[in-house]
Amino acid sequence: PVNADRIAEDIAALAKITEPDHPWTRRAFSPLFLEGRAYIEARMKAAGLETRIDAAGNLIGRSAGTNPGLGTIMVGSHSDTVPDGGRFDGIAGVISALEVARALKDQAITLEHDLEIVDFLAEEVSIFGVSCVGSRGMTGQLPEAWLSRKSGDRDLAKGISGVGGDPATLLAQRRPDLKGFLELHIEQGPVLENEKKDIGIVTAIAGITRIEVSVEGRADHAGTTPMDARADALVAASQLVLDIRNAAAELAKTPGHFAATVGEFRIEPNAANVVPSKVVLLIDGRAEIRSDMEAFCEWLDAHVITLAIAHGVMINAPSRVSDNYPTPGDPSVLRTLENACETVGAEHRRMASGAGHDTAWIAKVAPAAMIFVPCREGRSHSADEWAENDDIALGAAVLFEAVREMDRT
Amino acid sequence: PVNADRIAEDIAALAKITEPDHPWTRRAFSPLFLEGRAYIEARMKAAGLETRIDAAGNLIGRSAGTNPGLGTIMVGSHSDTVPDGGRFDGIAGVISALEVARALKDQAITLEHDLEIVDFLAEEVSIFGVSCVGSRGMTGQLPEAWLSRKSGDRDLAKGISGVGGDPATLLAQRRPDLKGFLELHIEQGPVLENEKKDIGIVTAIAGITRIEVSVEGRADHAGTTPMDARADALVAASQLVLDIRNAAAELAKTPGHFAATVGEFRIEPNAANVVPSKVVLLIDGRAEIRSDMEAFCEWLDAHVITLAIAHGVMINAPSRVSDNYPTPGDPSVLRTLENACETVGAEHRRMASGAGHDTAWIAKVAPAAMIFVPCREGRSHSADEWAENDDIALGAAVLFEAVREMDRT
Ligand SMILES: NC(=O)NCCC(=O)O
Ligand SMILES: NC(=O)NCCC(=O)O
Repeated sequence: PVNADRIAEDIAALAKITEPDHPWTRRAFSPLFLEGRAYIEARMKAAGLETRIDAAGNLIGRSAGTNPGLGTIMVGSHSDTVPDGGRFDGIAGVISALEVARALKDQAITLEHDLEIVDFLAEEVSIFGVSCVGSRGMTGQLPEAWLSRKSGDRDLAKGISGVGGDPATLLAQRRPDLKGFLELHIEQGPVLENEKKDIGIVTAIAGITRIEVSVEGRADHAGTTPMDARADALVAASQLVLDIRNAAAELAKTPGHFAATVGEFRIEPNAANVVPSKVVLLIDGRAEIRSDMEAFCEWLDAHVITLAIAHGVMINAPSRVSDNYPTPGDPSVLRTLENACETVGAEHRRMASGAGHDTAWIAKVAPAAMIFVPCREGRSHSADEWAENDDIALGAAVLFEAVREMDRT
Repeated sequence: PVNADRIAEDIAALAKITEPDHPWTRRAFSPLFLEGRAYIEARMKAAGLETRIDAAGNLIGRSAGTNPGLGTIMVGSHSDTVPDGGRFDGIAGVISALEVARALKDQAITLEHDLEIVDFLAEEVSIFGVSCVGSRGMTGQLPEAWLSRKSGDRDLAKGISGVGGDPATLLAQRRPDLKGFLELHIEQGPVLENEKKDIGIVTAIAGITRIEVSVEGRADHAGTTPMDARADALVAASQLVLDIRNAAAELAKTPGHFAATVGEFRIEPNAANVVPSKVVLLIDGRAEIRSDMEAFCEWLDAHVITLAIAHGVMINAPSRVSDNYPTPGDPSVLRTLENACETVGAEHRRMASGAGHDTAWIAKVAPAAMIFVPCREGRSHSADEWAENDDIALGAAVLFEAVREMDRT
């Protein structure tokens, strides 16, 4: 039902709107981002959609339904990128959603519900240190205090108004009219490719918990201090990294996606001939099942005490710098998506998303779920990111069928 | 024979010549450094010494001997400091040496040999990335290429001429007149304090070997990449840190000082939600016995191959970025120092220096050895650095007796 060439053409056009030396960079709030949006808006208008920027700075293309009181079906994703990544991450979902609207128009189908195609503002961690600005903002989940977070001399409120949003009315947003939400996204992992599946039906978006641990030893002269008279913060922190990996690998073997990664690791004084005095590490934990995260945190709290004693260092009580619960996909939307896969003949499997997505925020206020399409070697947030256009087009066809079924029920 | 109050007064005066917010910082080549030297030079002159700056930028105070052809006995250390450290590190040895000259004058003793009291230029790693500038330079061991090493728009040659040295004639330096060299230094380790000894007779200065290892994994999304599908450079590097610690602890149990420390550790991309792709670590190895260092390097070369396979990462062949052999103290000078300890009634023990010192460079061209005095909790290169004045004065008395014995033989 959808036109694969049109999808390829739009994704290629957006790929040209990038920092030339850093493909494929189109950072939220940048002039390039606005250039990308101008392209998308023009294509929305060409598809007969009425465009607007909402209070949260989301770009929305709307087609009124035949039955005004029924509410809105929304489909979309985001057009911003991380630095050096994002050839498909986000934009594949925006263009697929747009293609649904175009395919409906081609087939002269008008839905009973209003249809909105959305490009959420700043899904990726932005220059203001905030991610999912648009999806949080559209649903009243952007804390007021965050509006004053700064990047240079601009704050987030200025950033939102700069793209045409209205931060003053932002906090009152709720969208009670939303009847359902769908998002297509690249998997950003290797599972679909390895299992040769076309579509992942995302049963849950993992909760993300960030935990900071700081290990304090004693700075000593690396030349003169006997090996057995040291309190080496790096040695203790290295043991902690290994223990975290092993604990996470165990939890990953139980039902439900689980991962924990030490991604940030800073040592002090970081001088060649000084025994490291301090390491601060940041753990990124992901759990499909909340009790897994609770178990991990409980293990960690106890383990650092044992470790501190064994290594003669101090380890602070691990501090959760952020903590979000897993978000299940709406069961009836999941069934609708599976039916749609059957209709278009797509091989599908249920799976969790280890990554955060706008869908997680929309799912707090409306029935929502998402689908994944395969991406090469699971690579994302990198210039290597690649997805086959046929896979994206098949995903768009699934969205098309699912929107039609949602409209009927 | 020496005057402890004079030593205390001078060390206290030098402690006042520091960056006010960063005690006790008097970095080589800085205006404060020159201020410190002006004080030392004035005190040298007051002690009847004839002062000069040699080609390598060392400050030397000289008293001619009665027998001009016999050569020079030299005593000294350095007045520069690391950032935030150096209340006693270096300066205790310069002032003790000066006190030897003063005590000789007080007692109206003129040596047969010429006596030189030296403040070596830039013993600590300097802004040009070079340490032991003065002791290397005085003995023709400063590689010519290093003279063009930069700090901002100044090079080391400019730095040396800026303190009054003469880089043009530097490479011809040899000092064949040196008959003996002595240095007093704080231990910078906990051994003397723990064993309640007054003096360490330094049998050897450990060789310092710096080894760089880089571990390359693959940057993956921390949320979506299953635990068993990762090539996490931080996990592999953490195992390496622990293995290095254990290997070093084993070698430390065999005769001869041995230590190995990972002091620098940089991870990439160091982002919360990205599996680390790369870790570069720098190992600082110290060996009193060269074969220990060879054994360590052989173990490391083989071990990284095993580790790379086990963790699915690439580890480059460890690269020795610098490599110096251990320097034994001269046996007859060591005996002279032990005799001096007996004369003044100092409790002494033989020990190795894990830290590098100017003595190591002078020992390549002349009979040389050094003594350690205790420092509190082994702390150095830190604002906490402390040594008791009575301990330093006892060390100065040992130097005095040793100089007299060297003069006689
Ligand atoms: N989809 C995605 O990469 N989101 C970024 C937030 C995260 O999951 O780390
Ligand atoms: N004595 C001393 O601290 N020297 C600095 C060089 C080193 O040993 O690391």
